[in-house]
Amino acid sequence: MLLSIQLQREFGALLLAAVAACVAWEDGDVWDYDGHKLKDSDFLALWPLPQKVQSSAVSFQLSASRFQFTHAEGSSAGSDCSILQNAFRRYFDYIFGFTKKDRDQRRRNAAGSEVLELQVAITSPDAECDGFPSLTSDESYELSVDQPSAVLKAPKVWGALRGLETFSQLVYEDAYGARNINKTGVSDFPRFAHRGVLLDSSRHYLPLKVILANLEAMAMNKYNVFHWHISDDQSFPYVSRMFPDLSQKGSYHPYTHVYTPADVKMVIEFARMRGIRVIAEFDTPGHTQSWGFGQKDLLTPCYTGSSPSGTYGPVNPILNTTYDFMAGFFKEISTVFPDAYVHLGGDEVDFSCWKSNPDIQKFMDQQGFGKDYSKLESFYIQRLLDIVSSTDKGYMVWQEVFDNGVKLKMDTLIHVWKGNEAQYQAEMARVTGAGYRTLLSTPWYLNRISYGQDWRDAYKADPCNFTGTDAQKKLVIGGEACLWGEYVDASNLTPRLWPRASAVAERLWSDQGVRDISDAYVRLVQHRCRMVERGIPAEPLFTGYCRHEYSGV
Amino acid sequence: MLLSIQLQREFGALLLAAVAACVAWEDGDVWDYDGHKLKDSDFLALWPLPQKVQSSAVSFQLSASRFQFTHAEGSSAGSDCSILQNAFRRYFDYIFGFTKKDRDQRRRNAAGSEVLELQVAITSPDAECDGFPSLTSDESYELSVDQPSAVLKAPKVWGALRGLETFSQLVYEDAYGARNINKTGVSDFPRFAHRGVLLDSSRHYLPLKVILANLEAMAMNKYNVFHWHISDDQSFPYVSRMFPDLSQKGSYHPYTHVYTPADVKMVIEFARMRGIRVIAEFDTPGHTQSWGFGQKDLLTPCYTGSSPSGTYGPVNPILNTTYDFMAGFFKEISTVFPDAYVHLGGDEVDFSCWKSNPDIQKFMDQQGFGKDYSKLESFYIQRLLDIVSSTDKGYMVWQEVFDNGVKLKMDTLIHVWKGNEAQYQAEMARVTGAGYRTLLSTPWYLNRISYGQDWRDAYKADPCNFTGTDAQKKLVIGGEACLWGEYVDASNLTPRLWPRASAVAERLWSDQGVRDISDAYVRLVQHRCRMVERGIPAEPLFTGYCRHEYSGV
Repeated sequence: MLLSIQLQREFGALLLAAVAACVAWEDGDVWDYDGHKLKDSDFLALWPLPQKVQSSAVSFQLSASRFQFTHAEGSSAGSDCSILQNAFRRYFDYIFGFTKKDRDQRRRNAAGSEVLELQVAITSPDAECDGFPSLTSDESYELSVDQPSAVLKAPKVWGALRGLETFSQLVYEDAYGARNINKTGVSDFPRFAHRGVLLDSSRHYLPLKVILANLEAMAMNKYNVFHWHISDDQSFPYVSRMFPDLSQKGSYHPYTHVYTPADVKMVIEFARMRGIRVIAEFDTPGHTQSWGFGQKDLLTPCYTGSSPSGTYGPVNPILNTTYDFMAGFFKEISTVFPDAYVHLGGDEVDFSCWKSNPDIQKFMDQQGFGKDYSKLESFYIQRLLDIVSSTDKGYMVWQEVFDNGVKLKMDTLIHVWKGNEAQYQAEMARVTGAGYRTLLSTPWYLNRISYGQDWRDAYKADPCNFTGTDAQKKLVIGGEACLWGEYVDASNLTPRLWPRASAVAERLWSDQGVRDISDAYVRLVQHRCRMVERGIPAEPLFTGYCRHEYSGV
Repeated sequence: MLLSIQLQREFGALLLAAVAACVAWEDGDVWDYDGHKLKDSDFLALWPLPQKVQSSAVSFQLSASRFQFTHAEGSSAGSDCSILQNAFRRYFDYIFGFTKKDRDQRRRNAAGSEVLELQVAITSPDAECDGFPSLTSDESYELSVDQPSAVLKAPKVWGALRGLETFSQLVYEDAYGARNINKTGVSDFPRFAHRGVLLDSSRHYLPLKVILANLEAMAMNKYNVFHWHISDDQSFPYVSRMFPDLSQKGSYHPYTHVYTPADVKMVIEFARMRGIRVIAEFDTPGHTQSWGFGQKDLLTPCYTGSSPSGTYGPVNPILNTTYDFMAGFFKEISTVFPDAYVHLGGDEVDFSCWKSNPDIQKFMDQQGFGKDYSKLESFYIQRLLDIVSSTDKGYMVWQEVFDNGVKLKMDTLIHVWKGNEAQYQAEMARVTGAGYRTLLSTPWYLNRISYGQDWRDAYKADPCNFTGTDAQKKLVIGGEACLWGEYVDASNLTPRLWPRASAVAERLWSDQGVRDISDAYVRLVQHRCRMVERGIPAEPLFTGYCRHEYSGV
C-alpha cells in the first residue's frame, strides 16, 4: 500500500552512465510530494538523496535478536566475500548500536510487521569482492524494503555498499528505542564517478585513527575517493622502502609522525572495504621542501648573486639524477598504491629560485627556453609523466599543468582548483573544450571557514555550471572537497570537515535537480546527528540537538 | 648562578591591586633578554606570562618516583585542604603523565641536581581552603625553583593554584623523556580580577563532560570565571527545584538535555577546585522563549491586530505574577550558585511584541511612558534588580541596561559586548565615566571565526584602550571570551575555543606591556601542545606538530 508520499522521479534513462551527469534530464523538476509530511519523516533522512525513492507509511520493525543480513540465493557473492561480511557487521552495529541484543525484547508483532532479513544479491558474475574500486566501478543498486525480507540488488559489491548505507539510513528509532523501517523502494546510482575528499598529512601529521575515522564518515556520505595529499613542503611522512631517508629526515618525527608501509596498507584496505579508492598525491616540482632533507641534490640550490644562498627551491629539473630518482620512487608508488591513478600535483611552482641559479640559466639557454620558466616546468612535468606512464598508471594533475601547455595523454584528469566562480567555470570550459576529463575543487576548499552556515555555498556549487556542449559536460567526472592542513590536525579535523563535506557529497551523488536547500537542511540536520551517533564528531549546522549527543570530549 | 636569560621586570609596585591594571608601569618596555635563546627554550613555554620571571640555565631533574608536593611548615593549609590535595594529584599527573612511576629509573644524579619536592606555603592565616573564589580573591604567588626543594608561597589557596600551574609549565621533557626544570624565580599576580569564559548551554546542550573539560582548560590558562549562559530562547536546561516545569517543558529533552541540581553542584565544585567562579546568567526579559513553555503567563502574548497571534514576546513586565515568579526563581538561584554575582542579561529586547499588545499599551499610558518602550524595559529591569538585591547578590548586566538609563547600584558590573572597536572603547569610557565597574567582551566573541590566525586580533585587543582618566581605568575589572552556541556543541566546542581563548587569557593576566606577538606565538604553540598532551583537543595555530598529538578521534 504505497501512499502519496512519493519521491518518484519519472525518468527512463537509467542506462545513462555517470559521465553523463551534466546532461540534464528532460522532464524538469518533478519532485512531487507532500512537503510537510516529508520533512517531518524520520524515514526520509536520506543523505545523499538517492536517484529514485518510493516510500510508504507502512512500517516494519527490526529486531536486533532476529534481523540478519544474508546472501541471496544466486548471488555471485557469498560468505567468503570479505567486503560484504565486513559491511554486514558494520551496518548491523550502526542500526542496532544503542540496542542491546535483548532476548527478552517484546515479542514479534503480528505476522507481517517485521523485516527479518536483508537479502543481498550481487547480480553480475564477478562481484569484485577481492578487487579494488575504480573510476569505472558500478555503484548502482536497487533496494526493496518489505516484509519479511528486504532485498538489495547490485551488479557489484560497490553498489551493495552504497545500498547498505541507504538501508541503514532508512532505519529509524521510535519513542521506545525500537528500530523501524518503512516499506520503501530505492533505485540509485551516482551522478559522478569521482567523488573525493582530500586530506593533507604534511602540514600536520594525521594519526592513522583520524584518517580511518574520516574514511568511515566518507562511506556514510557515499564518497568513493580518498585523495591523500601525503607530502608537501612541511613534512614527508611517507616511509619509502626504496628511499627511507625521505621520511627519516623529512618527517616531523621519524618514528611517531610517519606512515609505515603497514599503515599505508591498512588505509588502503580500510578504504577498499568501504568502496573508496586511495589516490596518493606526491606533489612536484614545487611543494617539495621536505624532500630535500632526505634526497641529496634533488632540490634546486638557490643563489644570492654568484653564490648559493643555502636555501633550496623546487625539484632540480636539469639533472639526470632527478629523473633516476623519480623513476625509482614512482615505481615504488605504483606498486604500493593499487589505484590506476596517481596525483602528480604540479601546482604553484615558484620560479624565483630557478631564476637565481646559473646552471639553470645555462640549461634554459641550451634548450632555447629563453626566459620562459614555464617551459622549464613543462620540461620537467613532461619527463615525469613519461616516467609515471611507464609504470602503467594514469595521472591526475592540478590545473596549472594544463594551463602551462604541457603535452598530456588524453586520459589525464585535470583537477580545477583556482579562481573565483567565473574563473573556474571558464577553466572547466577550456579543459573540457580541449577534450580532457576534469574534476572540480575550487568551491570546495573546506579549509576556508567563515561564520555561519557556509555549507550552503558548497551545496549550491555545481561542476556542470559552465558554458559548454553536452560532449564537454560528459567530460566532467566529479569533484573533491579539500581540507588543506595549515590549520587542521587531529584536534579539529573531523568537526571542521563534517557535515560541510556532506553538502559536497550530495552535489556529487544526487541528481542535478536536487537543489532545494530547505529540504536539504532538514535532511542534513538528521544526517549529521546520525554521524554523531555513529561516533563522528560532525559539527552542528545551527541551534538544536541530537537525541544522542557526541560523547567524546 | 642566574644567567643573563632574564625576564626580570624591575617593578616595585607589587602593592598595586589588580583593579589598577590599566595604569601603565612607568618604566616602559624593559624586557631585556637574549631573544633567540629564549624562544628556543623549553623552560620558557609559560602561558600566560607571569609578571616577573627570573630564569636560569641551571637545570634539575624531577623523578616520578621521588618527587612530591608537600605542605610547608607553618603553612595555614595542610592535608585536610581538599583544594590543594586535589591540585597536587592533578599537577602530578600533568607533569608525569607520560612517565611510568618506574622504580628502576636511572639513579639520582650527583647531589644537588634534583628537585625532590615543591613545598607549598599558604602565608595568610585563612588559606580559604573551604571557601569559594571571588572578585577580590588574592591570586598572587611567589615561586622559587631550586634544589632539593622548590617553594611556592601564596597568601591564599587561589594563588597557590596559579603557582602550581606555573610550576607545571616550567617542567619540560628532555630527549630521554625525563622531566627537568630549571632554577627559576617567579613573582606573579593577575592584571585583572575578572577573567572569564562564557559558554552557552541553551543554543546547544553541552554535556557535563564538555563543561568540565573546559574548566580544566580554563585552569591551564589561569581563567577564574565561568560565565554560564545557561538559558536562552532555544532551551531551558536548568532544572529548578521550585519550578521544575521550566526544564521539563523548556529543555530540548527533559531527561537527557538538562542540568540537574547534582550536575550544577558538580560544576561549581569542579570549578572551585580550580579557583574558578561560576556566574550563572539567566537572561531576561528577552531571550526567554524557552521559559514560556513551563511558566504560564510569563511571556507577553503578541497580537495581530486585535487578537493574540499565538506567539510570545519578552517577559511580560506588567503582571504582578511575573515579579512573584522572578522573586521565587532568583531566591533559588541565589542559594544554588554561591557566587556573589548573578548575570541578569538584559540584552537585545525586541519591542515589537510589546507594541502589539493592547494591555501593554494601556500600561504604558498609565505609567506615562508614551511610546518609549525602553522605559518599559527599564521598569522591568529596575524591579528585577530590586528582587535580586534582596537576595544579597550583586549583579552583572549587558551594556544595554546601562545604555537605557536604568538606575543601577554603584556595584553593578556592566558587561560591554557591542559595536566595533571605536564603539566599544567609547562605551567603556562612558560606563567608567559614570563610575561603574566594567568588563569587556566585544573583541572576544570567539564564536565568530575566520580563516587563519584570528587569535592575533584577540591578543591585540586591550580593555584599557580607551580615552579616560586613571580613575576610570581602575574601574575596568577584566573581560570575558564568549563562545555563543549557535554553531557549537560537544562535537566542536573545545577545538574552537582553545587556544583562541588562551590569547584572551594572557591579555587578562599578564602585564599590559606583554604585547610581542612573535614571542607570544612561540610560547602559545608550546602551550597549545601542552593542552593537547593534557587531553584538551586545542586546535593548531599553524603548520607544525606536537610531540604527542591529540589521540581522540
